[in-house]
Amino acid sequence: MKAQILHQFGPPENFQLSDIPEPLLIPGHVLIRVRATSVNQVDCKIRSGAVAAIAPDFPAVLHGDVAGVITAVAADVTDFVPGDEVYGCAGGLKGSGGALAELMLADARLIAKKPVSLSMREAAALPLVSITAWEALFVKNHLTAQHKVLIHGGAGGVGHIGVQLARWCGANVSTTVRQPEDFAVVTAFGADQVINANEESVEQYVARITDGQGFDLVFDTVGGANLDKSMQAARINGAVVAIAARSTHDLSPMHSKSLTLSVVFMLIPILKNLGRAAHGDILKQIAAIVDEGKLKPLIDPHHFTLETVSEAHALLESGKAHGKVVITVS
Amino acid sequence: MKAQILHQFGPPENFQLSDIPEPLLIPGHVLIRVRATSVNQVDCKIRSGAVAAIAPDFPAVLHGDVAGVITAVAADVTDFVPGDEVYGCAGGLKGSGGALAELMLADARLIAKKPVSLSMREAAALPLVSITAWEALFVKNHLTAQHKVLIHGGAGGVGHIGVQLARWCGANVSTTVRQPEDFAVVTAFGADQVINANEESVEQYVARITDGQGFDLVFDTVGGANLDKSMQAARINGAVVAIAARSTHDLSPMHSKSLTLSVVFMLIPILKNLGRAAHGDILKQIAAIVDEGKLKPLIDPHHFTLETVSEAHALLESGKAHGKVVITVS
Repeated sequence: MKAQILHQFGPPENFQLSDIPEPLLIPGHVLIRVRATSVNQVDCKIRSGAVAAIAPDFPAVLHGDVAGVITAVAADVTDFVPGDEVYGCAGGLKGSGGALAELMLADARLIAKKPVSLSMREAAALPLVSITAWEALFVKNHLTAQHKVLIHGGAGGVGHIGVQLARWCGANVSTTVRQPEDFAVVTAFGADQVINANEESVEQYVARITDGQGFDLVFDTVGGANLDKSMQAARINGAVVAIAARSTHDLSPMHSKSLTLSVVFMLIPILKNLGRAAHGDILKQIAAIVDEGKLKPLIDPHHFTLETVSEAHALLESGKAHGKVVITVS
Repeated sequence: MKAQILHQFGPPENFQLSDIPEPLLIPGHVLIRVRATSVNQVDCKIRSGAVAAIAPDFPAVLHGDVAGVITAVAADVTDFVPGDEVYGCAGGLKGSGGALAELMLADARLIAKKPVSLSMREAAALPLVSITAWEALFVKNHLTAQHKVLIHGGAGGVGHIGVQLARWCGANVSTTVRQPEDFAVVTAFGADQVINANEESVEQYVARITDGQGFDLVFDTVGGANLDKSMQAARINGAVVAIAARSTHDLSPMHSKSLTLSVVFMLIPILKNLGRAAHGDILKQIAAIVDEGKLKPLIDPHHFTLETVSEAHALLESGKAHGKVVITVS
């Protein structure tokens, strides 16, 4: 089968279109005819070598997000049959199959039937970002219609799903953006208040939106020094949830406000084979919300194929993508 | 009335036994004839000037923990009548009355009837440490009999209450100590596993007690660099709760294990007049658990009176107290 193969870490040009053996079915798994995959930040970091510890062995097939059609199921798999259209984030990491190939081996617990109202390209944009946002808002926290939530980076990959899921549950949603053109994007996704993070200080928007009390929950999809701003924006006894918290921080604001900080590292179930069924369950709920018309992915208009994976990676890394970067595979 | 008064921050000798006017009753409050008070670390920090922002104005009456008898209630207070024996952590901070005096003005929402099975001295040892431990285990977290909890500093003021409350709810309790004589103390309080933190590494005791998986919850009553050890000892998707988190930390372990970190700053309801009724409710539950024989304070054998408050502070700051340092006031 055709696949984009990585023989060593480095720039996007390191991908090599190759012909490799089809993966063999193993217990608990399915084979998926890959129709589309999307690029996540972690895929670029794996490719570059920035997170070598979680990278698949060389020659490596990258990418976890997949949408496609099941071609074979192991004897012990009862939830799926060949022909099912599915989606999931099912690999691209050490010890698992990858989606940059015509066929992907996937643990059946990590996937679900794809939303019927979405194309394969749209479905492939959702798994990693929607599971991440779901875990941040509804597993690590319990966001409800009684809460005011601030989502940093609401036009980003995880952020734009977070805005929609927060609205879906009825919460009052504020979100930060940095580009003028993103105001319309997050407003269309249902944000109640939009903050230009380049122009308004934390103190200013906490005063404007929460009467100085702070937000019940701050979802930080940006990371780095922004986490300090997230702590600053939370109310007393409030919560912050982050998806990138590898840096060093002064925890004094957590002390003075009795805060709770959670971190979501969405890849753990794949990497550790721990709690995988939770991801399939979340994707079932996401599919239902999508088919109710309450959630849709923002897709960058550029089209890529298995032949142009390098360009897709380069676009995401340029910071100039407008929405998820999706690759049509077959 | 007699009171120990502080006119400026500094060493324990700064206390001055004085005669000051009795406090005036205000709405929502009661007057308590103070029988006993206990010394908490925060009282020493307030006295020294280390946390001047939360200190009462000079001339200052310090100490929040109190046990005593109600002498008067405001017209709008319905839960108490004169003669009630009560306990609570009700002041010693900016804007509130203090317990180092014969009479203390206290918000009725912050106090509860004292456990009938305890002396006034024993009851005065409990409020701050038991509310802190309760909030850490049962408000910020939801510890149950299904969990393995690690309590750092199980022989300390908050720690020895934490060990007993964790046992009370049926959890499996491990605790660290540093003094050989503390092994017997924490074992008597019900610890299932005792760790000598001077001799066993985090990796070693996580392997011994949790088969390398890590603890469901780590309650860090020590703070500082110990918080890094707490993150190290938590399991994937586990939680850490701290009561002193003003320092700077690398959050990478939180990322790699999808951890949750909560901080309890128990004084917020007093300082901010926010959620005070929760403290009275917790103290009611604590009194019931005490009277069931499931919780008791560890009291240092030295006796102090209102005349010897300086010596009581010096003992706590020496690190040589064995249990809570209690002062008999009247």
